Amino acid sequence: MNVPEPTLRRLPWYLSNLKLLKQRGAAHVSSTQISKDINIDASQIAKDLSFVNISGRTRVGYEVDTLIAALEDFLGFTALHKAFLFGVGSLGGALLRDSGLKHFGLEIVAAFDVKPSLVGTSIEGIPIFHTDELAQRMSQYHVPIGVLTVPIEIAQEITDKMVEGGIKAVWNFTPFRIRVPQDIVVQNTSLYAHLAVMFNRLSTIDRKP
Amino acid sequence: MNVPEPTLRRLPWYLSNLKLLKQRGAAHVSSTQISKDINIDASQIAKDLSFVNISGRTRVGYEVDTLIAALEDFLGFTALHKAFLFGVGSLGGALLRDSGLKHFGLEIVAAFDVKPSLVGTSIEGIPIFHTDELAQRMSQYHVPIGVLTVPIEIAQEITDKMVEGGIKAVWNFTPFRIRVPQDIVVQNTSLYAHLAVMFNRLSTIDRKP
Repeated sequence: MNVPEPTLRRLPWYLSNLKLLKQRGAAHVSSTQISKDINIDASQIAKDLSFVNISGRTRVGYEVDTLIAALEDFLGFTALHKAFLFGVGSLGGALLRDSGLKHFGLEIVAAFDVKPSLVGTSIEGIPIFHTDELAQRMSQYHVPIGVLTVPIEIAQEITDKMVEGGIKAVWNFTPFRIRVPQDIVVQNTSLYAHLAVMFNRLSTIDRKP
Repeated sequence: MNVPEPTLRRLPWYLSNLKLLKQRGAAHVSSTQISKDINIDASQIAKDLSFVNISGRTRVGYEVDTLIAALEDFLGFTALHKAFLFGVGSLGGALLRDSGLKHFGLEIVAAFDVKPSLVGTSIEGIPIFHTDELAQRMSQYHVPIGVLTVPIEIAQEITDKMVEGGIKAVWNFTPFRIRVPQDIVVQNTSLYAHLAVMFNRLSTIDRKP
Protein backbone atom coordinates (compact mmCIF):
# COMPACT_ATOMS: atom_id res chain seq x y z
CA MET A 1 0.00 0.00 0.00
CA ASN A 2 1.31 3.40 -0.97
CA VAL A 3 0.96 5.34 2.27
CA PRO A 4 1.04 9.16 1.91
CA GLU A 5 4.48 10.57 2.68
CA PRO A 6 3.24 13.05 5.34
CA THR A 7 1.68 10.11 7.20
CA LEU A 8 4.91 8.11 6.94
CA ARG A 9 6.80 11.07 8.33
CA ARG A 10 4.42 11.52 11.25
CA LEU A 11 4.22 7.86 12.29
CA PRO A 12 7.78 7.85 13.75
CA TRP A 13 6.71 10.81 15.94
CA TYR A 14 3.86 8.73 17.38
CA LEU A 15 6.23 5.81 17.82
CA SER A 16 8.76 7.79 19.84
CA ASN A 17 5.95 9.33 21.91
CA LEU A 18 4.57 5.84 22.62
CA LYS A 19 7.98 4.57 23.70
CA LEU A 20 8.17 7.44 26.13
CA LEU A 21 4.67 6.75 27.50
CA LYS A 22 5.60 3.09 27.92
CA GLN A 23 8.69 4.05 29.91
CA ARG A 24 6.41 6.11 32.14
CA GLY A 25 4.25 3.06 32.77
CA ALA A 26 1.27 3.69 30.46
CA ALA A 27 -0.53 0.56 29.24
CA HIS A 28 -3.17 2.26 27.11
CA VAL A 29 -3.26 5.50 25.18
CA SER A 30 -5.82 7.44 23.16
CA SER A 31 -5.14 9.54 20.11
CA THR A 32 -6.30 12.51 22.20
CA GLN A 33 -3.49 11.84 24.66
CA ILE A 34 -0.86 11.56 21.92
CA SER A 35 -2.34 14.71 20.42
CA LYS A 36 -1.78 16.68 23.63
CA ASP A 37 1.81 15.47 23.88
CA ILE A 38 2.93 16.23 20.36
CA ASN A 39 0.57 18.98 19.25
CA ILE A 40 -1.04 17.28 16.24
CA ASP A 41 -4.83 17.00 15.74
CA ALA A 42 -6.26 13.85 17.32
CA SER A 43 -8.32 13.22 14.19
CA GLN A 44 -5.15 13.37 12.08
CA ILE A 45 -3.46 10.89 14.40
CA ALA A 46 -6.42 8.49 14.23
CA LYS A 47 -6.42 8.81 10.44
CA ASP A 48 -2.68 8.16 10.21
CA LEU A 49 -2.95 5.15 12.53
CA SER A 50 -5.77 3.73 10.40
CA PHE A 51 -3.11 2.85 7.80
CA VAL A 52 -1.44 0.66 10.38
CA ASN A 53 -3.44 -2.50 10.87
CA ILE A 54 -4.55 -1.89 14.43
CA SER A 55 -7.60 -0.31 16.03
CA GLY A 56 -8.22 1.40 19.32
CA ARG A 57 -11.17 0.53 21.55
CA THR A 58 -13.65 3.17 22.61
CA ARG A 59 -12.81 4.63 26.00
CA VAL A 60 -9.77 2.33 26.51
CA GLY A 61 -7.78 3.47 23.49
CA TYR A 62 -4.81 1.67 21.96
CA GLU A 63 -2.71 -0.85 23.85
CA VAL A 64 0.72 0.80 24.04
CA ASP A 65 2.79 -2.39 23.57
CA THR A 66 0.71 -3.60 20.64
CA LEU A 67 0.77 -0.22 18.93
CA ILE A 68 4.55 0.11 19.34
CA ALA A 69 5.09 -3.34 17.83
CA ALA A 70 2.62 -2.67 15.00
CA LEU A 71 4.23 0.69 14.17
CA GLU A 72 7.79 -0.64 14.23
CA ASP A 73 6.75 -3.46 11.96
CA PHE A 74 4.74 -1.19 9.64
CA LEU A 75 7.58 1.32 9.32
CA GLY A 76 10.04 -1.44 8.42
CA PHE A 77 12.21 -0.97 11.50
CA THR A 78 11.96 -4.61 12.63
CA ALA A 79 13.25 -6.15 9.39
CA LEU A 80 16.90 -5.59 8.50
CA HIS A 81 17.24 -4.01 5.05
CA LYS A 82 20.70 -4.52 3.62
CA ALA A 83 22.48 -1.59 2.03
CA PHE A 84 25.71 -0.68 0.28
CA LEU A 85 27.24 2.72 0.93
CA PHE A 86 28.99 4.60 -1.89
CA GLY A 87 31.64 7.18 -1.06
CA VAL A 88 33.54 6.81 2.21
CA GLY A 89 34.25 10.50 2.70
CA SER A 90 33.46 12.53 5.75
CA LEU A 91 29.69 11.95 5.79
CA GLY A 92 29.92 8.39 4.43
CA GLY A 93 32.41 7.43 7.11
CA ALA A 94 30.18 9.03 9.73
CA LEU A 95 27.18 6.98 8.59
CA LEU A 96 29.24 3.77 8.70
CA ARG A 97 30.00 4.59 12.34
CA ASP A 98 26.36 5.36 13.20
CA SER A 99 25.16 2.09 14.69
CA GLY A 100 21.76 3.71 15.31
CA LEU A 101 20.67 3.04 11.72
CA LYS A 102 20.62 -0.69 12.48
CA HIS A 103 17.98 -0.17 15.17
CA PHE A 104 15.77 1.37 12.53
CA GLY A 105 16.14 -1.42 10.02
CA LEU A 106 19.12 -0.38 7.90
CA GLU A 107 22.20 -2.60 7.84
CA ILE A 108 25.10 -1.30 5.77
CA VAL A 109 26.92 -4.50 4.80
CA ALA A 110 29.67 -3.05 2.62
CA ALA A 111 31.00 0.26 1.33
CA PHE A 112 32.59 1.30 -1.94
CA ASP A 113 35.21 3.87 -2.81
CA VAL A 114 38.11 4.25 -5.22
CA LYS A 115 40.73 5.69 -2.86
CA PRO A 116 43.65 3.24 -2.57
CA SER A 117 44.07 4.21 1.10
CA LEU A 118 40.48 3.07 1.82
CA VAL A 119 39.95 0.04 -0.45
CA GLY A 120 40.64 -3.16 1.46
CA THR A 121 40.18 -1.57 4.88
CA SER A 122 37.04 -1.57 7.01
CA ILE A 123 35.12 0.73 9.37
CA GLU A 124 33.28 -0.77 12.35
CA GLY A 125 33.69 -4.15 10.68
CA ILE A 126 32.12 -2.99 7.40
CA PRO A 127 34.45 -3.83 4.50
CA ILE A 128 35.34 -1.19 1.91
CA PHE A 129 35.64 -2.47 -1.65
CA HIS A 130 36.70 -0.82 -4.90
CA THR A 131 33.75 0.59 -6.83
CA ASP A 132 34.69 -1.66 -9.75
CA GLU A 133 33.83 -4.68 -7.62
CA LEU A 134 30.15 -3.70 -7.35
CA ALA A 135 28.76 -6.35 -9.71
CA GLN A 136 30.74 -9.08 -8.01
CA ARG A 137 29.74 -8.01 -4.49
CA MET A 138 26.11 -7.60 -5.55
CA SER A 139 25.89 -11.25 -6.52
CA GLN A 140 27.38 -12.08 -3.13
CA TYR A 141 25.20 -9.86 -0.91
CA HIS A 142 21.94 -9.21 -2.89
CA VAL A 143 21.42 -5.72 -1.56
CA PRO A 144 18.31 -3.62 -2.40
CA ILE A 145 19.47 -0.22 -1.06
CA GLY A 146 22.33 2.09 -1.97
CA VAL A 147 23.39 4.98 0.27
CA LEU A 148 24.88 7.77 -1.86
CA THR A 149 27.52 9.93 -0.16
CA VAL A 150 29.88 10.66 -3.05
CA PRO A 151 31.03 14.08 -4.32
CA ILE A 152 28.43 15.74 -6.59
CA GLU A 153 30.66 15.38 -9.67
CA ILE A 154 30.15 11.61 -9.70
CA ALA A 155 26.71 11.39 -8.05
CA GLN A 156 24.91 10.60 -11.32
CA GLU A 157 27.59 8.22 -12.58
CA ILE A 158 27.58 6.19 -9.35
CA THR A 159 23.77 6.19 -9.29
CA ASP A 160 23.75 4.73 -12.81
CA LYS A 161 26.19 2.03 -11.70
CA MET A 162 24.05 1.21 -8.67
CA VAL A 163 20.91 0.85 -10.78
CA GLU A 164 22.78 -1.24 -13.34
CA GLY A 165 24.01 -3.40 -10.47
CA GLY A 166 20.47 -4.07 -9.26
CA ILE A 167 19.93 -1.47 -6.52
CA LYS A 168 16.20 -0.72 -6.10
CA ALA A 169 16.33 2.29 -3.78
CA VAL A 170 18.84 5.12 -3.47
CA TRP A 171 19.19 7.07 -0.21
CA ASN A 172 20.70 10.24 -1.63
CA PHE A 173 22.64 12.38 0.85
CA THR A 174 24.25 14.51 -1.85
CA PRO A 175 22.78 17.93 -2.71
CA PHE A 176 22.66 16.69 -6.32
CA ARG A 177 19.32 15.87 -7.95
CA ILE A 178 19.97 12.41 -9.33
CA ARG A 179 17.96 10.83 -12.15
CA VAL A 180 16.77 7.24 -12.03
CA PRO A 181 14.43 4.98 -14.00
CA GLN A 182 10.79 5.19 -12.90
CA ASP A 183 10.79 1.97 -10.87
CA ILE A 184 13.70 3.03 -8.67
CA VAL A 185 12.98 4.67 -5.32
CA VAL A 186 14.91 7.83 -4.41
CA GLN A 187 14.92 9.25 -0.89
CA ASN A 188 16.66 12.62 -0.72
CA THR A 189 18.17 13.59 2.62
CA SER A 190 20.24 16.67 1.98
CA LEU A 191 21.62 17.90 5.28
CA TYR A 192 22.80 21.00 3.44
CA ALA A 193 19.31 21.87 2.19
CA HIS A 194 18.07 21.55 5.77
CA LEU A 195 20.89 23.81 6.91
CA ALA A 196 19.90 26.38 4.29
CA VAL A 197 16.32 26.40 5.54
CA MET A 198 17.47 26.75 9.15
CA PHE A 199 19.94 29.57 8.39
CA ASN A 200 17.27 31.49 6.50
CA ARG A 201 14.70 31.16 9.30
CA LEU A 202 17.35 32.16 11.81
CA SER A 203 18.31 35.29 9.90
CA THR A 204 14.63 36.19 9.60
CA ILE A 205 14.03 36.11 13.38
CA ASP A 206 17.32 37.93 13.92
CA ARG A 207 16.05 40.86 11.93
CA LYS A 208 12.80 41.13 13.85
CA PRO A 209 12.67 44.21 16.13
CA MET B 1 12.88 37.73 3.88
CA ASN B 2 10.95 34.57 4.60
CA VAL B 3 11.68 32.48 1.51
CA PRO B 4 9.28 29.55 0.89
CA GLU B 5 10.73 26.27 2.17
CA PRO B 6 10.33 24.42 -1.18
CA THR B 7 12.42 27.17 -2.81
CA LEU B 8 15.07 26.91 -0.10
CA ARG B 9 15.20 23.17 -0.65
CA ARG B 10 15.57 23.49 -4.41
CA LEU B 11 18.25 26.21 -4.41
CA PRO B 12 21.00 23.79 -3.24
CA TRP B 13 20.14 21.58 -6.23
CA TYR B 14 20.78 24.49 -8.58
CA LEU B 15 23.97 25.29 -6.71
CA SER B 16 25.39 21.79 -7.07
CA ASN B 17 24.38 21.73 -10.73
CA LEU B 18 26.14 25.07 -11.28
CA LYS B 19 29.30 23.82 -9.59
CA LEU B 20 29.28 20.89 -11.98
CA LEU B 21 28.76 23.13 -15.02
CA LYS B 22 31.62 25.32 -13.84
CA GLN B 23 33.92 22.30 -13.59
CA ARG B 24 32.96 21.50 -17.16
CA GLY B 25 34.02 24.97 -18.23
CA ALA B 26 30.67 26.76 -18.60
CA ALA B 27 30.80 30.54 -18.07
CA HIS B 28 27.09 31.26 -18.61
CA VAL B 29 23.95 29.26 -18.04
CA SER B 30 20.24 29.73 -18.64
CA SER B 31 17.42 28.43 -16.46
CA THR B 32 16.43 26.29 -19.46
CA GLN B 33 19.82 24.56 -19.32
CA ILE B 34 19.60 23.94 -15.59
CA SER B 35 16.07 22.71 -16.18
CA LYS B 36 17.24 20.08 -18.66
CA ASP B 37 19.94 18.89 -16.28
CA ILE B 38 17.85 18.48 -13.19
CA ASN B 39 14.35 18.01 -14.52
CA ILE B 40 12.59 20.98 -12.93
CA ASP B 41 10.49 23.50 -14.89
CA ALA B 42 12.60 26.41 -16.17
CA SER B 43 9.90 28.84 -15.02
CA GLN B 44 10.10 27.39 -11.51
CA ILE B 45 13.89 27.78 -11.54
CA ALA B 46 13.66 31.40 -12.71
CA LYS B 47 11.07 32.08 -10.01
CA ASP B 48 13.23 30.46 -7.30
CA LEU B 49 16.29 32.39 -8.46
CA SER B 50 14.32 35.66 -8.34
CA PHE B 51 14.55 35.43 -4.52
CA VAL B 52 18.32 35.55 -4.83
CA ASN B 53 19.47 39.05 -5.66
CA ILE B 54 20.79 38.37 -9.14
CA SER B 55 19.32 38.53 -12.61
CA GLY B 56 20.09 36.74 -15.84
CA ARG B 57 20.52 38.58 -19.14
CA THR B 58 18.39 37.74 -22.16
CA ARG B 59 20.12 35.26 -24.47
CA VAL B 60 23.32 35.16 -22.35
CA GLY B 61 21.76 33.86 -19.14
CA TYR B 62 23.34 33.92 -15.72
CA GLU B 63 27.06 34.20 -15.14
CA VAL B 64 28.01 30.87 -13.54
CA ASP B 65 30.61 32.26 -11.10
CA THR B 66 28.40 35.13 -9.98
CA LEU B 67 25.38 32.89 -9.51
CA ILE B 68 27.39 30.33 -7.49
CA ALA B 69 28.70 33.05 -5.20
CA ALA B 70 25.26 34.65 -4.84
CA LEU B 71 23.61 31.31 -4.03
CA GLU B 72 26.24 30.27 -1.50
CA ASP B 73 25.90 33.61 0.18
CA PHE B 74 22.10 33.58 0.07
CA LEU B 75 21.90 30.06 1.48
CA GLY B 76 24.17 30.99 4.37
CA PHE B 77 26.97 28.63 3.36
CA THR B 78 29.67 31.32 3.28
CA ALA B 79 29.18 32.56 6.83
CA LEU B 80 30.16 30.22 9.66
CA HIS B 81 27.24 29.64 12.04
CA LYS B 82 28.41 28.37 15.38
CA ALA B 83 26.61 25.45 16.97
CA PHE B 84 26.62 23.29 20.09
CA LEU B 85 25.85 19.59 19.75
CA PHE B 86 23.88 17.81 22.47
CA GLY B 87 24.26 14.05 22.92
CA VAL B 88 27.51 12.45 21.79
CA GLY B 89 26.04 9.05 20.99
CA SER B 90 26.40 7.18 17.75
CA LEU B 91 24.83 9.82 15.49
CA GLY B 92 26.14 12.78 17.50
CA GLY B 93 29.69 11.43 17.34
CA ALA B 94 29.26 10.86 13.60
CA LEU B 95 28.20 14.47 13.05
CA LEU B 96 31.19 15.74 15.04
CA ARG B 97 33.40 13.77 12.64
CA ASP B 98 31.64 15.08 9.53
CA SER B 99 33.87 17.95 8.47
CA GLY B 100 31.56 18.52 5.47
CA LEU B 101 29.14 20.55 7.59
CA LYS B 102 31.75 23.28 7.90
CA HIS B 103 31.81 23.77 4.14
CA PHE B 104 28.10 24.50 4.29
CA GLY B 105 28.33 27.06 7.06
CA LEU B 106 27.90 25.03 10.25
CA GLU B 107 30.74 24.98 12.76
CA ILE B 108 30.16 22.80 15.81
CA VAL B 109 32.34 24.46 18.45
CA ALA B 110 31.50 22.26 21.44
CA ALA B 111 29.47 19.22 22.43
CA PHE B 112 27.59 18.30 25.60
CA ASP B 113 26.90 14.99 27.27
CA VAL B 114 26.64 13.61 30.80
CA LYS B 115 28.65 10.39 30.38
CA PRO B 116 31.76 10.54 32.60
CA SER B 117 33.72 8.64 29.92
CA LEU B 118 32.99 11.43 27.41
CA VAL B 119 33.05 14.63 29.46
CA GLY B 120 36.48 16.27 29.27
CA THR B 121 37.48 14.46 26.08
CA SER B 122 37.22 15.77 22.51
CA ILE B 123 36.39 14.51 19.01
CA GLU B 124 38.22 16.04 16.05
CA GLY B 125 39.32 18.82 18.34
CA ILE B 126 35.76 19.63 19.47
CA PRO B 127 35.62 19.64 23.29
CA ILE B 128 32.90 17.69 25.11
CA PHE B 129 31.53 19.40 28.24
CA HIS B 130 29.07 18.29 30.89
CA THR B 131 25.51 19.38 30.11
CA ASP B 132 25.44 21.29 33.40
CA GLU B 133 28.11 23.62 31.99
CA LEU B 134 25.83 24.91 29.24
CA ALA B 135 25.15 28.36 30.75
CA GLN B 136 28.84 28.92 31.43
CA ARG B 137 29.93 27.81 27.93
CA MET B 138 27.17 29.85 26.31
CA SER B 139 28.56 33.06 27.79
CA GLN B 140 31.94 32.00 26.44
CA TYR B 141 30.94 31.01 22.90
CA HIS B 142 27.65 32.89 22.11
CA VAL B 143 26.20 30.14 19.94
CA PRO B 144 22.86 30.52 18.09
CA ILE B 145 22.31 26.88 17.01
CA GLY B 146 21.87 23.63 18.94
CA VAL B 147 22.15 20.23 17.25
CA LEU B 148 19.94 17.71 19.07
CA THR B 149 21.12 14.09 18.98
CA VAL B 150 20.08 12.85 22.43
CA PRO B 151 17.86 9.84 23.25
CA ILE B 152 14.14 10.62 22.87
CA GLU B 153 13.52 10.37 26.64
CA ILE B 154 15.44 13.59 27.25
CA ALA B 155 14.85 15.35 23.91
CA GLN B 156 12.33 17.82 25.37
CA GLU B 157 14.29 18.41 28.57
CA ILE B 158 17.49 19.21 26.68
CA THR B 159 15.58 21.40 24.22
CA ASP B 160 14.20 23.41 27.15
CA LYS B 161 17.71 23.81 28.55
CA MET B 162 19.00 24.95 25.16
CA VAL B 163 16.29 27.58 24.81
CA GLU B 164 16.84 28.74 28.39
CA GLY B 165 20.55 29.00 27.58
CA GLY B 166 19.89 31.28 24.61
CA ILE B 167 19.84 28.92 21.62
CA LYS B 168 17.77 30.40 18.77
CA ALA B 169 17.53 27.41 16.41
CA VAL B 170 17.37 23.68 17.08
CA TRP B 171 18.47 21.16 14.44
CA ASN B 172 16.51 18.17 15.67
CA PHE B 173 17.84 14.77 14.56
CA THR B 174 15.70 12.83 17.04
CA PRO B 175 12.42 11.25 15.92
CA PHE B 176 10.79 13.18 18.78
CA ARG B 177 8.53 16.13 18.08
CA ILE B 178 10.01 18.79 20.34
CA ARG B 179 8.12 21.88 21.51
CA VAL B 180 9.67 25.32 21.56
CA PRO B 181 8.55 28.94 22.07
CA GLN B 182 7.26 30.61 18.91
CA ASP B 183 10.40 32.61 18.20
CA ILE B 184 12.68 29.55 18.17
CA VAL B 185 13.47 27.88 14.83
CA VAL B 186 13.21 24.09 14.62
CA GLN B 187 14.60 22.12 11.71
CA ASN B 188 13.64 18.45 11.87
CA THR B 189 15.95 15.99 10.14
CA SER B 190 14.82 12.56 11.16
CA LEU B 191 16.90 10.00 9.31
CA TYR B 192 14.53 7.36 10.65
CA ALA B 193 11.45 9.01 9.16
CA HIS B 194 13.26 9.11 5.81
CA LEU B 195 14.13 5.43 6.21
CA ALA B 196 10.46 4.65 6.88
CA VAL B 197 9.40 6.42 3.69
CA MET B 198 12.08 4.60 1.68
CA PHE B 199 11.22 1.18 3.12
CA ASN B 200 7.54 1.69 2.35
CA ARG B 201 8.20 2.75 -1.23
CA LEU B 202 10.58 -0.17 -1.67
CA SER B 203 8.02 -2.69 -0.39
CA THR B 204 5.43 -1.19 -2.73
CA ILE B 205 7.54 -1.68 -5.85
CA ASP B 206 8.50 -5.17 -4.62
CA ARG B 207 4.88 -6.18 -4.64
CA LYS B 208 4.26 -4.95 -8.17
CA PRO B 209 3.88 -7.82 -10.66
